[in-house]
Amino acid sequence: MSVFDDFVRRDKRALARIITHIENRRENYRQLLAAVSRLPHQGYRIGITGPPGSGKSTLVDALVLRYIQQGLRVGVIAIDPSSPFTGGALLGDRIRMQHLVNRDSVFIRSMASRGESGGLAAATRDVTKVLDAFGMDLIIIETVGIGQIELDIVEACDSVVVVLVPESGDMIQTMKAGLMEIADIFCVNKIDRPGADRLLSILNSMVHERQTASSVEIRAVGTNGMNGEGVDSLAEAIEKHRGVITTGGELERRRGSQLKAEIVHAVRDRVVRQLEETIDFDGQFEHVSRQLASGELDLYSAADMIYDRYFRK
Amino acid sequence: MSVFDDFVRRDKRALARIITHIENRRENYRQLLAAVSRLPHQGYRIGITGPPGSGKSTLVDALVLRYIQQGLRVGVIAIDPSSPFTGGALLGDRIRMQHLVNRDSVFIRSMASRGESGGLAAATRDVTKVLDAFGMDLIIIETVGIGQIELDIVEACDSVVVVLVPESGDMIQTMKAGLMEIADIFCVNKIDRPGADRLLSILNSMVHERQTASSVEIRAVGTNGMNGEGVDSLAEAIEKHRGVITTGGELERRRGSQLKAEIVHAVRDRVVRQLEETIDFDGQFEHVSRQLASGELDLYSAADMIYDRYFRK
Repeated sequence: MSVFDDFVRRDKRALARIITHIENRRENYRQLLAAVSRLPHQGYRIGITGPPGSGKSTLVDALVLRYIQQGLRVGVIAIDPSSPFTGGALLGDRIRMQHLVNRDSVFIRSMASRGESGGLAAATRDVTKVLDAFGMDLIIIETVGIGQIELDIVEACDSVVVVLVPESGDMIQTMKAGLMEIADIFCVNKIDRPGADRLLSILNSMVHERQTASSVEIRAVGTNGMNGEGVDSLAEAIEKHRGVITTGGELERRRGSQLKAEIVHAVRDRVVRQLEETIDFDGQFEHVSRQLASGELDLYSAADMIYDRYFRK
Repeated sequence: MSVFDDFVRRDKRALARIITHIENRRENYRQLLAAVSRLPHQGYRIGITGPPGSGKSTLVDALVLRYIQQGLRVGVIAIDPSSPFTGGALLGDRIRMQHLVNRDSVFIRSMASRGESGGLAAATRDVTKVLDAFGMDLIIIETVGIGQIELDIVEACDSVVVVLVPESGDMIQTMKAGLMEIADIFCVNKIDRPGADRLLSILNSMVHERQTASSVEIRAVGTNGMNGEGVDSLAEAIEKHRGVITTGGELERRRGSQLKAEIVHAVRDRVVRQLEETIDFDGQFEHVSRQLASGELDLYSAADMIYDRYFRK
């Protein structure tokens, strides 16, 4: 029996091995990913994002527990953007979910990456595909939403939950546009703390304002991840959003643009890789960068010259 | 008199107008940027980064005050990565530094951007060039360092100061590698708070460990931005680092790789722009993305096909 056969009959060790193989870009990983992608898959992708300290992990644990009690199979990707300042999120992820990790119907992967831009987003996308092909009903992608790359990741999900805490009230007006752009559902976690009602009412009026502009309703729910309060409402809000975008054709439209964005990013990464391989051995590159340094050439003309040399057909 | 002439004779209103023109990519901005880049310039770039709440802005204010008292001209770029979760940093920037902003020798610009990746990094790079050509002796780039893009920005500086607070001690071991990679100088701000000595000693031993591996010494200093304590030591540490990298040839090497990275990024942005313009009108793109959706094609083969069609010479 090959690892792939084991994967097809839903062996979790085979799943882990295939993810590692693809993540590390080992030999033939592209063929492997292609084979995996051809398997039937119909998982739904839920993005959970929010500031550090908003209790996302605990909330995800509570959601996962609820889903597996319903007989669903759940994959979780916990992303640590590995900025030096996010402060040990990864370490936390590794010791959490101990009570979930041994369940047959749950698979949890922590991911971290620095390096070329696009690396983390590409790896997350690949692992999502593998979990989907493994037969997960739901794939939850949890990320501390604080940079462009993390926002790119979360925007590739079908339903996006933005988790806030009562103390987020003070910054909400400033950040309104950005939040409305990514959230399908708002969740005020740690609802027992002061300010929760105020934040919920601010969110509800933001949501109400926007309602005229869009056919898809945004909802705001309050939760307490620690004791499970409100988690059912959150799950219902996600389910409702899923229903609306599925029947209205919005899901198909979203996935279409996701695919196009994936192709654009993959082509972009290929161009960068090719330039980085060439850069030290190419006399013209050296020449152009000297002219840029001296001010003889501006950056955009320099880029045009390199583009013309390597990429203009 | 043209705006450009006013710029050359160091009129701050002309500086502001030229920055706005270039930032908004108005007509002929490339020519304008090229003309600006040809002016003599010899500014030194200092990056100040650290987690939200580490008191970077207050510290930058104190540094700027010190520099202008020495007769230096200082440009400040305060970056807000505009993630929904960084919480009003921009708003804070706008009302800060009121006592500095009217000085002839200081120019402060807040920048925010979401949108295509690379947008913020490119704009920061352009504004840095304009400030440099205006005759600023020092250009300080302050950013909350929490995403790949912000790290890209700060890595394009000549000296990078990582600002931490005493409470950062708990996360320091986890994040050691990432911190050592970007920091030229560590600064423990809010030094009056408990844990400061412990963090300084952890940093000093990290720095000591690394000393064997590199010729450029990293230093750790303690400051209190609110009352100015330690700001002289910080300025001296920056000056010392500048001296070492300037005489050792390291500065030239850094700037060489910065220029190459700039060209690569500009070419990459051009490729993405071209793809995004084509994507909706190209039958093959549609065809490829349908094949990707059905699993007939894997992403990397899809990217190869698009690459071959548009960019392979």
